[in-house]
Amino acid sequence: MERIPILKMGEFLLVSIQVDMHDRLALQLQDDLTERIAATSARGVLIDISSLEMVDSFIGRMLGNLAAMSRVLDAQTVVVGMRPAVAITLVELGMSLPGVRTALNVERGMDLLSSSADLQVPGREHGAGLR
Amino acid sequence: MERIPILKMGEFLLVSIQVDMHDRLALQLQDDLTERIAATSARGVLIDISSLEMVDSFIGRMLGNLAAMSRVLDAQTVVVGMRPAVAITLVELGMSLPGVRTALNVERGMDLLSSSADLQVPGREHGAGLR
Repeated sequence: MERIPILKMGEFLLVSIQVDMHDRLALQLQDDLTERIAATSARGVLIDISSLEMVDSFIGRMLGNLAAMSRVLDAQTVVVGMRPAVAITLVELGMSLPGVRTALNVERGMDLLSSSADLQVPGREHGAGLR
Repeated sequence: MERIPILKMGEFLLVSIQVDMHDRLALQLQDDLTERIAATSARGVLIDISSLEMVDSFIGRMLGNLAAMSRVLDAQTVVVGMRPAVAITLVELGMSLPGVRTALNVERGMDLLSSSADLQVPGREHGAGLR
């Protein structure tokens, strides 16, 4: 497995992280995601981490970087599916995931993205969210 | 990684297979997916295999089994994201994935599920597909 798939769903992109991240894979994901945002004019990115049993500083930094890169490409990022144990560990480690918005699951993340996309682009003609 | 995450999106469930399947993982996925279908009353299941570089007879049988199990639980299954090279290999191997419907990507798979769900449940009150 050399790449993490990026699924296009309406105006959003969904990235489901299921494998152990390492440097090269993280860089590959950055490249792939930014390219897909540019190619698809995506308004939002959902990163699902429900498979991850641990979020360390490396993963936290990667999530922050992905969110920052998406932001300058005019796409919002929401991290979804964090396990309760992961949230506990994050806070105990003093990691607050700065610049990263979170939602409980994919559906709530989509709602969040839809509402913020609506706020920012009141005049656009196509509806927010998925058909 | 001991489980493949199942993401709920509206009336559909999305399973993105990114890791090498083996017997135990396939059985776990069967258990998890059937339970989620029952728990969420999902109308459709999307199985994304865009990460898979090869679909052998084991994977083919697993996809067929998942589709058959979903069907008896009243959910349609669509396999999406198959790579062109995988399609070539499948046909060359004489595997036609009986009982498994396919679509090019997640969006088309959702359209397929939405339209067939509409046909089967004409009187239901909520719209097909995702909000």
